[in-house]
Amino acid sequence: MNFIGSHILSVSQFQREDIETVFNVADKMIPYANRDRVTRVLEGAILGNMFFEPSTRTRVSFGCAWNLLGGEVRETTEVKASAIAKGESFYDTARVLSGYSDIIVMRHQTEGSVEEFSAASRVPVINGGDGSNEHPSQALLDLFTIRKEMEGRGKTVDDLRIALIGDLRYGRAVHSLCKLLSLYKNIHFTLISPAELRLPETYVEDIKASGHVVVESEDLQAGIAHADILYVTRTQEERFPSQEEADKYKGLFRLNQTIYTENCEPNTVIMHPLPRDSRGDARELDDDLNENPNLAIFRQTDNGVVIRMALFALILDVVDQVEKSARDVNWYTAGRFR
Amino acid sequence: MNFIGSHILSVSQFQREDIETVFNVADKMIPYANRDRVTRVLEGAILGNMFFEPSTRTRVSFGCAWNLLGGEVRETTEVKASAIAKGESFYDTARVLSGYSDIIVMRHQTEGSVEEFSAASRVPVINGGDGSNEHPSQALLDLFTIRKEMEGRGKTVDDLRIALIGDLRYGRAVHSLCKLLSLYKNIHFTLISPAELRLPETYVEDIKASGHVVVESEDLQAGIAHADILYVTRTQEERFPSQEEADKYKGLFRLNQTIYTENCEPNTVIMHPLPRDSRGDARELDDDLNENPNLAIFRQTDNGVVIRMALFALILDVVDQVEKSARDVNWYTAGRFR
Amino acid sequence: MNFIGSHILSVSQFQREDIETVFNVADKMIPYANRDRVTRVLEGAILGNMFFEPSTRTRVSFGCAWNLLGGEVRETTEVKASAIAKGESFYDTARVLSGYSDIIVMRHQTEGSVEEFSAASRVPVINGGDGSNEHPSQALLDLFTIRKEMEGRGKTVDDLRIALIGDLRYGRAVHSLCKLLSLYKNIHFTLISPAELRLPETYVEDIKASGHVVVESEDLQAGIAHADILYVTRTQEERFPSQEEADKYKGLFRLNQTIYTENCEPNTVIMHPLPRDSRGDARELDDDLNENPNLAIFRQTDNGVVIRMALFALILDVVDQVEKSARDVNWYTAGRFR
Repeated sequence: MNFIGSHILSVSQFQREDIETVFNVADKMIPYANRDRVTRVLEGAILGNMFFEPSTRTRVSFGCAWNLLGGEVRETTEVKASAIAKGESFYDTARVLSGYSDIIVMRHQTEGSVEEFSAASRVPVINGGDGSNEHPSQALLDLFTIRKEMEGRGKTVDDLRIALIGDLRYGRAVHSLCKLLSLYKNIHFTLISPAELRLPETYVEDIKASGHVVVESEDLQAGIAHADILYVTRTQEERFPSQEEADKYKGLFRLNQTIYTENCEPNTVIMHPLPRDSRGDARELDDDLNENPNLAIFRQTDNGVVIRMALFALILDVVDQVEKSARDVNWYTAGRFR
Repeated sequence: MNFIGSHILSVSQFQREDIETVFNVADKMIPYANRDRVTRVLEGAILGNMFFEPSTRTRVSFGCAWNLLGGEVRETTEVKASAIAKGESFYDTARVLSGYSDIIVMRHQTEGSVEEFSAASRVPVINGGDGSNEHPSQALLDLFTIRKEMEGRGKTVDDLRIALIGDLRYGRAVHSLCKLLSLYKNIHFTLISPAELRLPETYVEDIKASGHVVVESEDLQAGIAHADILYVTRTQEERFPSQEEADKYKGLFRLNQTIYTENCEPNTVIMHPLPRDSRGDARELDDDLNENPNLAIFRQTDNGVVIRMALFALILDVVDQVEKSARDVNWYTAGRFR
Repeated sequence: MNFIGSHILSVSQFQREDIETVFNVADKMIPYANRDRVTRVLEGAILGNMFFEPSTRTRVSFGCAWNLLGGEVRETTEVKASAIAKGESFYDTARVLSGYSDIIVMRHQTEGSVEEFSAASRVPVINGGDGSNEHPSQALLDLFTIRKEMEGRGKTVDDLRIALIGDLRYGRAVHSLCKLLSLYKNIHFTLISPAELRLPETYVEDIKASGHVVVESEDLQAGIAHADILYVTRTQEERFPSQEEADKYKGLFRLNQTIYTENCEPNTVIMHPLPRDSRGDARELDDDLNENPNLAIFRQTDNGVVIRMALFALILDVVDQVEKSARDVNWYTAGRFR
């Protein structure tokens, strides 16, 4: 695909070579995210960070990625006070807001809303999450993390063995990650979930059709053996018909250090799209794993910044200019990403 | 008037020559809003974008205008968590906040609040809307749009024929626009509204006293014939005593392409202060007009950015410095304002 | 203490010499806060301004201080939509957010929350207020104001006579100020409050143990005679078990110009951590004092900006670089801090 001026709406837009393009640019962004270097390549450019559904971390991550390239951020954090709430169409909102910024990141709870918005926008739009549908930058940062963790272990994404654990039905991040992994070769998927929260059949079929192996299981301990990656998810309470319904599945699959040690191979990577629920009755990923060096969950969020920087740089065609306006950091930074 | 260091509280501050001053500066701002050029003239300056009543688009438009001049934005989006809610006077709020920024844009639902605030502020204040009272930058962008649309048709604001349509009683934008137009010569106003939502008598009297013609009507189709500009407004539901009361007037005057074609002269301009209500029972301005090149509603919001840039530049006395710190844009921008 | 890379969590971290270090740097920041000069020393650096409990003025003050040093601000204004509300631990929140910015200011209603957060953060954290516990930058700006006001009167913080008035039980600002003042010599404290809202015994004991004099009183007029500083506080309604309970103490101690003139020595300084409650039934500090030149309440908030600039500059080790990237202001600023 040609990234310049494009909308990023769905992981379905990407071929394997496109993903490699994003990852190569993301690698170049590390010195800036690490605060070794400062670039001002987008000085004067404006991001419209339009979060009509609130999300502190995704919003701040996109805003931070933009700031790291030198640009300014204008943003909104809810739909309540917006014109949309006064009956404005996505068409109108898009036509208006696209007069204010050079690029827009949009999140809205309605499936398909971001695509409808993008069709009327005069500037490129990145989908920051439209309900249970798509959140492509999350899938890219997950895959980027898998690639980097595998590299550190002398392996590749091809031939990966991954166990997906928890709410596979409503977990948007899981759905998109499955799509992206399907572009690679010879992946072994173990899907561990309660029967009611299985990965929807359409995703299972697509994975198989791409030539990968899928094993479904309700047994955590057996399922995580021999995996390279454990991808654990929280129950997506907000997508359930009721809190009561969601509570049924709380704490059904809990990974902790003891289960990890007894069942996993050494160096098995632990991932999670975050937030993890650390309350007593949930704890799908126990705090006692915090000192485990294979816990990659914070490397994931760190990687989110460079992936988003890469998308911005590719869409606005400034990849080759980043280094030109760069200099060393002049303030205290020790210990940040180390 | 002398703009340097002045508050902008009401359209009543302006004489015709002041408006021309703003418009001339606004014209100079177009290359920056269009992303042909970048200026950093206000690098290091801070805007206090204080929206105690929420308004996504006006807030983002002011913030964007400021960023386009190179400055930083600090902002607030509601009154709930503010000191005002703890019993603080506008005097105190103004004294405190004016220590934080170089200029303040303030919106608050209480009529007269911004003027009271400005009296205690140590920095210039722009009224971003005080209840149903004033919103001067909206009136300026409306008039600027009228001027530009008329220019494109070989006409002028003098001798304009304008039809104002809908809720003329509560529509703050309409009230202010009438005041500004009254400064010009030989305007023909057609006021089309339900009897209960007529333009308040005081405005009608002022228009007439300035030597213009006013015709009132409840007939949309007859009223829009021979007009140069149709200025359509939404029912200002939030100003009505109840939703029930507001609903009575929903959908009474709907403009669509068929009515336009059958009644208007070619090239009649369609304006609206936005948001327009696109829900089935409202639709004062039908979506089927979206491809009509005379629909100027998004040119209005685009013009809002350059008008606000002009106000900032005039008040802070940097008009002559804008170009000095300017350079060409170095990122992808094709298709933005075209 | 060594400021570089340190968290600022509590006034208990400071020795007298540390306070003097902060104040000396704060003095150097005045030309920038006054808009005589602009510095870009932190251009490219990002502040994570994380206000999980809303506070317009403290949030904007920190953000403004950061902008005045040239940095960018990413922020959040409530806990409702945050991952914390989905069961995320402060540990996780800190690990994630510290990947986004160079320094974090955090406010949260839970006592101890900011310290817990800071333990997991990879970047320095400043406590912007954790419930009724600590708000160290407020205490520093109060003491800085006292020092400057005393200097202007040929006096020092040593040998100060201060009357603390109002809700001394729940007033976090008062507690911290007492701790800081205890580091100086020979202070005379008059504590004026209803019996139920007395300064907690532990603070009284600590002050006495540091060799200072404490007099407690319920008589405003006698208590304020012979004081150098009157430090008046609002009833901290939000900390009371109920609004009813809080209302009992409203308006018990009201200072106005008449009481001031009749009881105080000339040039007695009036301070207040703000907001003051200007509603009829509260008014602990009457509006008729607004023209009294000894009313220092807005000098306090102005001083908050330079104190926060000083903390940022010390923690990020850029004090000596500030002037290097500085230039004169090029826009209208007359009348701002004068």
